[in-house]
Amino acid sequence: MNYPNGIKKDNKNRQITNNISHKNRGMTLEADLNITNEYYREIDKAYIYKKPTPIKITKVDYPSRDKTVIKEAFFTIPSTTDYNGLYKGKYIDFEAKETASKTAFALDNIHPHQINHINNINRHNGIAFLIIRFTTRNETYLVMAKDFLEFLEKNDRKSIPINFFKEKAYLIKDGYPARIDYLKLIDEVIGGI
Amino acid sequence: MNYPNGIKKDNKNRQITNNISHKNRGMTLEADLNITNEYYREIDKAYIYKKPTPIKITKVDYPSRDKTVIKEAFFTIPSTTDYNGLYKGKYIDFEAKETASKTAFALDNIHPHQINHINNINRHNGIAFLIIRFTTRNETYLVMAKDFLEFLEKNDRKSIPINFFKEKAYLIKDGYPARIDYLKLIDEVIGGI
Repeated sequence: MNYPNGIKKDNKNRQITNNISHKNRGMTLEADLNITNEYYREIDKAYIYKKPTPIKITKVDYPSRDKTVIKEAFFTIPSTTDYNGLYKGKYIDFEAKETASKTAFALDNIHPHQINHINNINRHNGIAFLIIRFTTRNETYLVMAKDFLEFLEKNDRKSIPINFFKEKAYLIKDGYPARIDYLKLIDEVIGGI
Repeated sequence: MNYPNGIKKDNKNRQITNNISHKNRGMTLEADLNITNEYYREIDKAYIYKKPTPIKITKVDYPSRDKTVIKEAFFTIPSTTDYNGLYKGKYIDFEAKETASKTAFALDNIHPHQINHINNINRHNGIAFLIIRFTTRNETYLVMAKDFLEFLEKNDRKSIPINFFKEKAYLIKDGYPARIDYLKLIDEVIGGI
């Protein structure tokens, strides 16, 4: 079993290796979430996918009858969050972001219409949240939309300090085979869903 | 005021031109659904979006510090349906397709993993369906996942005949301002959601 920080312990809770943290740190949050969502599908637990990156295609080429090559396209600003899907009949929706800062999560990481979207989902009884990883702290937090929106309402800041996460968010432990087992936390937070 | 598709109405909401059906025929199902979903968001009824087209990016250029141009990319096969979102706390998921055939909907229009996805969503109590437009008949049907999957199970055909739609599916009338008011049908089919 993998513990946070790459510490492996045996069944008496003694540390037995120390080389996992390198591997974990090397993986992006996106890769961890892909593996986790794939695992959820494999065990028929939830069907949650990352949306494709929105782009605007401006030039297309047809080198042969059944082949299409995009020759020019641009990334566009997403109007929703990156991940959504279905868990126990419920609509799940979240955004995932990494920051290298040790002290705060800068709010310009999230577009205003994404915040608007999170608010809409929350108001309509979807399960909305954010997963924020502080890479240099090696800590990944789940913040419920309600708490995130409350912070924005009460504060006129450009970033959310780490203390907010420590107080209001939920630390997600590295796991296996679900590397970022966020649905376990959702179960605990929401109660009997 | 300009209405979608150039339909003009007077202040009693009476249509003052008569060219709707022609124009309706000219609009793609995707355009009609975009207008409908936008309208649902405007009136705060539902938050349902078309997913971006999945592509694989193979070449990227950075002409300046804050600009990224995709120089080569390919369309990839989608693993889910095109539309999903939230309605009254429920997970909504559907695929939309047009066919020019007058007599049947060819099943090779839908990828096997999309069918698999529809099955997964249906089993997990999401509201899953298909919206199929027969363009030359000028008819748009909503088929619930349950009925669609039952057809596939019982039949070894490469297409679904129009009679199946007439018997098991729901004809969606052209409307305004929700052009394809599929949630109205969902309310009727599901009952008190």
